[in-house]
Amino acid sequence: MPELANDTFLRALRREPTEYTPIWLMRQAGRYLPEYNETRRRAGSFLALCKNPELACEVTLQPLERFPFDAAILFSDILTIPDAMGLGLYFAEGEGPRFERPVRDEAAVAQLAVPDPSRELRYVTDAVRTIRSALAGRVPLIGFAGSPWTLACYMVEGGASADFRRIKTMLYERPDLLERILAVNADAVAAYLNAQIDAGAQVVMLFDSWGGALADGAFQRFSLEPMRRVVSALRRGSGAPGAGNAPAIPVIVFTKGGGPWLEELADLGCDAVGVDWTVNLGRARERIGGRCAIQGNLDPMVLMAGENAVRRETQRVLDSFGAPAPGAGHVFNLGHGISQFTPPENVAVLVETVHSYSRRLRSS
Amino acid sequence: MPELANDTFLRALRREPTEYTPIWLMRQAGRYLPEYNETRRRAGSFLALCKNPELACEVTLQPLERFPFDAAILFSDILTIPDAMGLGLYFAEGEGPRFERPVRDEAAVAQLAVPDPSRELRYVTDAVRTIRSALAGRVPLIGFAGSPWTLACYMVEGGASADFRRIKTMLYERPDLLERILAVNADAVAAYLNAQIDAGAQVVMLFDSWGGALADGAFQRFSLEPMRRVVSALRRGSGAPGAGNAPAIPVIVFTKGGGPWLEELADLGCDAVGVDWTVNLGRARERIGGRCAIQGNLDPMVLMAGENAVRRETQRVLDSFGAPAPGAGHVFNLGHGISQFTPPENVAVLVETVHSYSRRLRSS
Repeated sequence: MPELANDTFLRALRREPTEYTPIWLMRQAGRYLPEYNETRRRAGSFLALCKNPELACEVTLQPLERFPFDAAILFSDILTIPDAMGLGLYFAEGEGPRFERPVRDEAAVAQLAVPDPSRELRYVTDAVRTIRSALAGRVPLIGFAGSPWTLACYMVEGGASADFRRIKTMLYERPDLLERILAVNADAVAAYLNAQIDAGAQVVMLFDSWGGALADGAFQRFSLEPMRRVVSALRRGSGAPGAGNAPAIPVIVFTKGGGPWLEELADLGCDAVGVDWTVNLGRARERIGGRCAIQGNLDPMVLMAGENAVRRETQRVLDSFGAPAPGAGHVFNLGHGISQFTPPENVAVLVETVHSYSRRLRSS
Repeated sequence: MPELANDTFLRALRREPTEYTPIWLMRQAGRYLPEYNETRRRAGSFLALCKNPELACEVTLQPLERFPFDAAILFSDILTIPDAMGLGLYFAEGEGPRFERPVRDEAAVAQLAVPDPSRELRYVTDAVRTIRSALAGRVPLIGFAGSPWTLACYMVEGGASADFRRIKTMLYERPDLLERILAVNADAVAAYLNAQIDAGAQVVMLFDSWGGALADGAFQRFSLEPMRRVVSALRRGSGAPGAGNAPAIPVIVFTKGGGPWLEELADLGCDAVGVDWTVNLGRARERIGGRCAIQGNLDPMVLMAGENAVRRETQRVLDSFGAPAPGAGHVFNLGHGISQFTPPENVAVLVETVHSYSRRLRSS
């Protein structure tokens, strides 16, 4: 494998000095790009695109052709795991993901098993290998998975939910059943991320999209602890110098709405904590700065406004993190996935502003 | 007006000692009660029910016939104000509230004006008078309004929104336009709440349902500051002893998802801050305890589980607040409105548990 031409992102995650603040965007390969929509049309559907390693590679690289992002992220979906468990993932037109066979009773829970990533999820590791090779060392490649809790939400609800009524009824009424689901999910996620690491992922990220729906107390038990089980099972490499030693693989954990629990997230053993836009980066840095890097946190809706607003709000986020200092790592990102309605030219302004303004902050 | 038979709620809001923790529930008069659905059928529609003082009084009192709640809350809707502004509120079947004439451009913003509560909103003050009289001093009556920001969300989006794209585009691109809307809304909300106070509301509450969608920084400017304008314009009475002196009217402010900004909310000059279930009550008490009472915060989905779970989780919330102490007020509530799917018998268990367990905490 070639040396990395740009390892700024990795150094920020290790809280080492960088010349500027690196940036990538959640869902940077996506519907706001016409070329993505074109490839998706060729694939036939979103799911077909996820399952075709050549096309997944193509869309993963598309945003890098337009913008000087500091990382690439595997094009895939967090629901590949429950799909591989046999729950029958499908996308109803305009309705988001659904499962044909949701997990709602004791019998369904008893049948759950950890899928073998080298078989049922082979298309994902093939995509990782293809992308890593196509990147040829330009920037690091991020692999990812949904958190055990977030996957369980979809598995029990059978799709997206406004109130999480089914899974929370299980949580409060039959916590033993939910914990069994979460244990299987945690082992499945760990095996899946380890397979992505073996295939060439240089960073891995856990998306805990629905952790913020949990009550204090329930979050710790049903989202945080299963994520700890994942993180501790990852083969992250020592990073020690010498032939044959695997490189260290940084781990990012992002709980949307996880502001109340930043300290506990930082104690998971991860390298960076992602935060959404409700969090003040300066306060987040005070709370967790010595333990982890921080990733975030521009409101994706800023990109709906004009260039001047994009510049102003981007600088505000960089300012809120405060002065670069040894031991404090910041990776710029949105606080959530980029909206399909984003004008691509605003992404160019965003990336340019992050790079140039953060360089200026370092020289002042 | 008769003396209050039960003023526990008012004393908790003033952070005076109480024999037990008072409880009421957001949306306690609502669709989980068959008798509510029957009255609504008679009214013809939700909006017709809101606009009929006799029927609004009937449904306001229904939950008190079943459960020993410590407060009643006016049956109404936060969107009465923009409706009175002429935006044309309607409810599309199964779709939630919509406006015929959303406020999206400079011309529409320029036309906005503060409605006269004694004319366009007369049906609300009539309902307050009718309910206050029918209550005959059983428990205090809460009046309410949406926060300026939350009303603006509906007015600009034209209905509910998942990403607040239209109003946030305005926020980042034309903050001057949004501030004009918020200034009108703040004056309208203050006039409306003052009219409710004049009609007999004994407590008023601001529902900032969408404040938690804002980025740090934007929250302070576009939700917190307009709420400060409302709170400072309320005619709250001195509560001083003596004939002719108006009683003090406590003010509750509830920002859903407002956990990051509890200190700033407590500095608004309100008497209590409502919190959702992501917030740990003990930590909230440390952060704001000396300044305000706290209202909350059971996850409404707990009420979907069985009796034992309801008891256990209710006790957990009471325990998390910690020991009763002078200067620390707690009002029990859910962290959001009660779900229409709640079995009414679970509400009975909840109220009984709050009353009996909090008495026990005081005697131990």
